Amino acid sequence: MTAQGLFLTFEGIDGSGKSTQARLLAETLRRLGHDVVLTREPGGSPGAEEIRRLVLEGDPDRWSAETEILLFTAARRDHLERTILPALAAGKIVVCDRFADSTRMYQGLSRGDLRRLVDQLHALMIGREPDLTVLIDMDPETGLSRAKGRHGNEERFEDFGPDLQRRMRTGFLALAQEFPDRFRVIDGNRDMDMVAADVTEIVTRELQRFS
Amino acid sequence: MTAQGLFLTFEGIDGSGKSTQARLLAETLRRLGHDVVLTREPGGSPGAEEIRRLVLEGDPDRWSAETEILLFTAARRDHLERTILPALAAGKIVVCDRFADSTRMYQGLSRGDLRRLVDQLHALMIGREPDLTVLIDMDPETGLSRAKGRHGNEERFEDFGPDLQRRMRTGFLALAQEFPDRFRVIDGNRDMDMVAADVTEIVTRELQRFS
Repeated sequence: MTAQGLFLTFEGIDGSGKSTQARLLAETLRRLGHDVVLTREPGGSPGAEEIRRLVLEGDPDRWSAETEILLFTAARRDHLERTILPALAAGKIVVCDRFADSTRMYQGLSRGDLRRLVDQLHALMIGREPDLTVLIDMDPETGLSRAKGRHGNEERFEDFGPDLQRRMRTGFLALAQEFPDRFRVIDGNRDMDMVAADVTEIVTRELQRFS
Repeated sequence: MTAQGLFLTFEGIDGSGKSTQARLLAETLRRLGHDVVLTREPGGSPGAEEIRRLVLEGDPDRWSAETEILLFTAARRDHLERTILPALAAGKIVVCDRFADSTRMYQGLSRGDLRRLVDQLHALMIGREPDLTVLIDMDPETGLSRAKGRHGNEERFEDFGPDLQRRMRTGFLALAQEFPDRFRVIDGNRDMDMVAADVTEIVTRELQRFS
């Protein structure tokens, strides 16, 4: 692990608590003496943050699904080159809130059936998958009311409503079955600290496997 | 032609006079009674112009070649969807200053050997080629001094110097041989009006072929 770092991602529907869990995990790993880079998508590098603003601000329909996928892939490429790969090369642990799996879900499923296109573009321009992906599984209605309570002005995907939340939950669980080697599913419908304890246990086990 | 429009592009090295020739051709075609959309890349639609600013403003090295290709492809997809295809569907003639061939040259050749990647991305996300591409062939040194006289602050490719201009000229001529069906090469080392007369003759012949 020390030689090549470890790349961990958190995925889940809006309001699943994955951002909180990513932050808690980063704090725990730092307390254990690890060098951790906590980052998120879309964004995570200065260039990618600019692309994020271009995509998420303004009229949600101003980009077609295909253009949006290209912009997110450009942001991911920059994030990978400038933030993730250098940190991994330095032997650090990268904890990332959302990565390519979110594009597979939100652009691949919600805006027409573009999953195949998302995968082809990922293979061509990104290639890299996380070493471990923690999926925080969450009741769609609970997730939606939590997400709405946050009033995030960039969180426009939440406006798609309970139907999308249900489809995304099912989609994420199917994705976990598609990539069983790297996915770990955690029940997010519990107290934050209980979820965090599960995350820590899973990641600690993974760190031992890689060390 | 009336049913599906005609998609014409101009290509050439910096300072070849292609932007002037695109404008003159649009004026001539309008005088002949055609409905013409004159556009350019990168840019050509509101979203694509925003992406253009993101790529061309700031430090030229802030994006990797691969990220730049993704951003240009996102801009092209938007330009195609919002400007070019609707105009062609309405039976108009689209005259475009630069298109995918410029990416094949400037990103495919000048920033490492990424031509294959450019082509794969084009096939996946764009697909469409022009009906006719006019290559204004120009002596590289003359082109460079003309381009430098313009002081365009976005024209950063010119800073790459005479070596790049020579490689680009050779590259464009090779591209014309690669796609002989749609490329027409015109000698740009002459008076602007003589070049324009050649362009008009070639395009008029093409219009008859399509009508």
